[in-house]
Amino acid sequence: MKADSREKRYGLMKVALGEAEADLAIIGGDIVNVYTAEVVKNLTVLIKGDRIAYVGELADKAITSHTEVIDAKGKVLIPGFIDGHTHIDSHYSISELVKFAIKGGTTTIVTETSDIGCVLGYEGVMQFIRSARNQPVKIFTTVPPVITISPVTEKNSGITVSQVRKLLKLGDVVGLGEAYWAAVLNGNDRVLELIAETIKAGKRVEGHSSGANGNKLQAYISAGISSCHEPITAEEILERLRLGLFVLIREGEVRRELETVAKIKDEKIDFSRLAVSSDGLGAEDIISYGYMDFIVQKAIDLGFAPVLAVQMTTLNVARHFNLGDHIGGIAPGRYADILVIPDLKTIKADYVISNGRVVAKDGEVVVPPRKHRYPGSLRQSITRKSNFTARDFAVPVAGSRSKVKVRVIGQITELLTREAVMDMPVIDGELKCDLNQDILKVAAIERSERGKSFTGFIRGTGLKKGAIAVSTSWDCSDIIVLGTGDADMAGAINRVIETGGGVVVFADGKILIELSLPVAGLTSLEPMEVIAAKQQAVRKAATDLGFKFPDICLTMAVLTTPAIPHLRICESGLFNLRQNGFVSLIME
Amino acid sequence: MKADSREKRYGLMKVALGEAEADLAIIGGDIVNVYTAEVVKNLTVLIKGDRIAYVGELADKAITSHTEVIDAKGKVLIPGFIDGHTHIDSHYSISELVKFAIKGGTTTIVTETSDIGCVLGYEGVMQFIRSARNQPVKIFTTVPPVITISPVTEKNSGITVSQVRKLLKLGDVVGLGEAYWAAVLNGNDRVLELIAETIKAGKRVEGHSSGANGNKLQAYISAGISSCHEPITAEEILERLRLGLFVLIREGEVRRELETVAKIKDEKIDFSRLAVSSDGLGAEDIISYGYMDFIVQKAIDLGFAPVLAVQMTTLNVARHFNLGDHIGGIAPGRYADILVIPDLKTIKADYVISNGRVVAKDGEVVVPPRKHRYPGSLRQSITRKSNFTARDFAVPVAGSRSKVKVRVIGQITELLTREAVMDMPVIDGELKCDLNQDILKVAAIERSERGKSFTGFIRGTGLKKGAIAVSTSWDCSDIIVLGTGDADMAGAINRVIETGGGVVVFADGKILIELSLPVAGLTSLEPMEVIAAKQQAVRKAATDLGFKFPDICLTMAVLTTPAIPHLRICESGLFNLRQNGFVSLIME
Repeated sequence: MKADSREKRYGLMKVALGEAEADLAIIGGDIVNVYTAEVVKNLTVLIKGDRIAYVGELADKAITSHTEVIDAKGKVLIPGFIDGHTHIDSHYSISELVKFAIKGGTTTIVTETSDIGCVLGYEGVMQFIRSARNQPVKIFTTVPPVITISPVTEKNSGITVSQVRKLLKLGDVVGLGEAYWAAVLNGNDRVLELIAETIKAGKRVEGHSSGANGNKLQAYISAGISSCHEPITAEEILERLRLGLFVLIREGEVRRELETVAKIKDEKIDFSRLAVSSDGLGAEDIISYGYMDFIVQKAIDLGFAPVLAVQMTTLNVARHFNLGDHIGGIAPGRYADILVIPDLKTIKADYVISNGRVVAKDGEVVVPPRKHRYPGSLRQSITRKSNFTARDFAVPVAGSRSKVKVRVIGQITELLTREAVMDMPVIDGELKCDLNQDILKVAAIERSERGKSFTGFIRGTGLKKGAIAVSTSWDCSDIIVLGTGDADMAGAINRVIETGGGVVVFADGKILIELSLPVAGLTSLEPMEVIAAKQQAVRKAATDLGFKFPDICLTMAVLTTPAIPHLRICESGLFNLRQNGFVSLIME
Repeated sequence: MKADSREKRYGLMKVALGEAEADLAIIGGDIVNVYTAEVVKNLTVLIKGDRIAYVGELADKAITSHTEVIDAKGKVLIPGFIDGHTHIDSHYSISELVKFAIKGGTTTIVTETSDIGCVLGYEGVMQFIRSARNQPVKIFTTVPPVITISPVTEKNSGITVSQVRKLLKLGDVVGLGEAYWAAVLNGNDRVLELIAETIKAGKRVEGHSSGANGNKLQAYISAGISSCHEPITAEEILERLRLGLFVLIREGEVRRELETVAKIKDEKIDFSRLAVSSDGLGAEDIISYGYMDFIVQKAIDLGFAPVLAVQMTTLNVARHFNLGDHIGGIAPGRYADILVIPDLKTIKADYVISNGRVVAKDGEVVVPPRKHRYPGSLRQSITRKSNFTARDFAVPVAGSRSKVKVRVIGQITELLTREAVMDMPVIDGELKCDLNQDILKVAAIERSERGKSFTGFIRGTGLKKGAIAVSTSWDCSDIIVLGTGDADMAGAINRVIETGGGVVVFADGKILIELSLPVAGLTSLEPMEVIAAKQQAVRKAATDLGFKFPDICLTMAVLTTPAIPHLRICESGLFNLRQNGFVSLIME
């Protein structure tokens, strides 16, 4: 958190004393006091610069003709929302997201940086941090531990101890990002060192304990993990709270848990260490629903007491990140991040005040986000040549066998895979796609010139025609291409390379639809609405080609992650997470 | 907080997984879960080294013949107590205090360092921190802002910005100590700079807002203050909690508020930002009652729910100081600071475990505190020569007036003074004590050779005979002497100087009783019991000499503080706190 000068603090004091004029006064509202969990009626908030000077009944002396006044009589004031766990380092630019954050009253965002971190390592994280500075809302980041199955990503992007030390010194950085539990339990040395450094710096080690329980969960926590946003039942929430974790209920793009876990509200326990966060929202969701505003509204609609719902998205989060002296409540000395809403149960801000300024009014942005100029280096994350041919995806079989046992990625749900062992015929010395058995090729390609590639097989996607390539793979810097034929795969991958990254749906020798993500091969600079429309078009094109899961980009992106079981792919081959190691494509 | 190595964390994980043996297991107790505010029955705690590895039902695999086992069936486990605000930098040595802390289950202490800080500045604070390290309990310190009326103390000991930066980098240092509200509102530049530096470092600025309310209180908070331990009514607590302060109810030597404010427990509010602390305990209290153990017991006896009483003295405090990942609860990864008590309402530990070791059993210390070797420099804080004579306390009046108006310190209560203006006769060109009117002399003497001195008058103490000198003045490095006659004053002060500091009661040309405090003129190295006995003897001697308030050392020590109204004294003269400036002894 940036420091305020002595002079600035002195200025606040003078306003509180009624000896200097406030810049902004919000008069007569009922305030949700997140510190005491009360609603305190008919108070006036005085603001000087970006901070609150006074909250009470004796405010008149500081209100002059130079003071901007908002009449909040009969309205309710709540602190600006804080998203305590999300991913905003890909797909849309910061300024596009901030626009929607502002509209709905999200004034602070704590984001992971694993996407940009995996692609560009320390430099990428620094670039992201720069893009997030000087926006009308506050954006804090966590350092990505870069837990990857890819030796190339580990080598190029794995954050080192000296790098994490530098990053942790920044006020923008609140801790270490989600360190998947399996990697920690497996004793990944680099990750354990990053955890130790983060604890030493007095910052938070964010957790990711999906599916862990009992001894394994406790072992993970004993490593120094301080939070989890992965519980999917009320029981898992209770177990984690009891073990001292800060728990964030997820209500986002990948999963929505609020409804399932809402019964946690009926427990007679202390909720001061419970929050709700998005864990990432897609462009379409943001346009359709909004941001933290819709999540808080949903919590209230599900029966969470409104004051608790507000605490879970303001003070509780601020305290977890040691930011409680600055944000999360409406009190003297805090940043003036305030929403004026019609009543306690209606999360629709008449005014959004962030850093002391009215940034949105009646749902319209009045202070535009800063458009960041991304440096040219960020647009050249892919240095591979776009000269792939069908032959590059051939899978030759040595010797003269007519049939081999092959490890195939069995797609079970849109996220989960298993290791399927299939007998496959060797045709002309090669293994080929078998559309009748729904067996396609999937390849992982290193971004850099003369980098590695690997082609394997995947079953159960339903794709009947064409190929799709994406450069947004999770926890990995590879480009992934899925295809029914080698030529279309080459076409798709070449186009992704040409555009500097993105998503390309390719069939019959031509591009059907594409979404360019030129910034690090991850992020578009187009408006949110354009991104959403293109994503929709990509999904529709994939469905038209037979792909049977709802979001092809998501399903393809997670093929590289160590966070979701079991058989994964990268430029170096197939990786079985159960065995925590690479496995051969062809079983001998 | 010191960092743990990756290897150590890995060791904890192995114990949690049942793949390595625990050093200590506490079996089958009912655990007060401070995170959820529940009691969870029949769990086992596994400890490896100084931290907890596991808390649950599946602990057997890690318990071997090498594991020390405590059977806690039918007992209750609570986290070790944390005193969030105290003063342990004078009177008794660290090792003496720690002995009593251990006995009663106080495993963490957060202390001010204003006494040593005012006398020896940065070097004194560093010396104190060294004395507090490597003890069987954890001791954290705050940096003293050194808010003083004394120009000498300000010049010699006022902590500078570069010094506070160095101190804030230490894991031992959790913030800036209590910055009296008047000094902050008066815009004391150095103090405002210290506050800004502390906020920049992400640490806490401890408050001291006794008597402040409304706009003044809010102005104070807007400066960046994060806590207050001074409220004396339930209403003041509520006001402060609502304003976002962390509030510590005081139950200590100078004041005891718990009983008066206990009705706060009946408010239906969030108590996660409320605590109880000692704000300093005298040797006699510690011997008679104990430490945090008696405070928690009292809270329970007054009707605070036991789980809340425990939260208020463990997790709530830890979170305030951003130590919640390390202390304050019984959960994996936390330091093993645990008390085994007979039942939820009886705060009398069968076992006290601190840093993973049984340090007390059935009220007996089994791991002795480390006796600190204080460096020689600390024993030479007073360089003044012990050659005072009666003439040094003469108060001459210029000119030939027979009567003058004199500003006299009017002692109202044992702490409060006012400015009393008295007509005093000039006798032989001097002002003299007037025992009939209960007007005595009081002098403040700089410690260093050829330092300044000032002699004034005080009324209302009742002292009939002799003189008393103390070197433990608050917020000031002066030695204070109060006397009925100049010769006895010289005798008392000379003896204090000879012994390197302390308390001396002197009458009829001889020492009646003394308590030597050779370490910085503040601290005795004797056992707590000896200190208590001598303090009692000093009080009795003062009472025998006519002194009418209960504790002469306290009443004299506060004569120099800017924290208590209104007329104060130091080597440079009389200071009126209402006017925030020096006033002349004789009114022209």
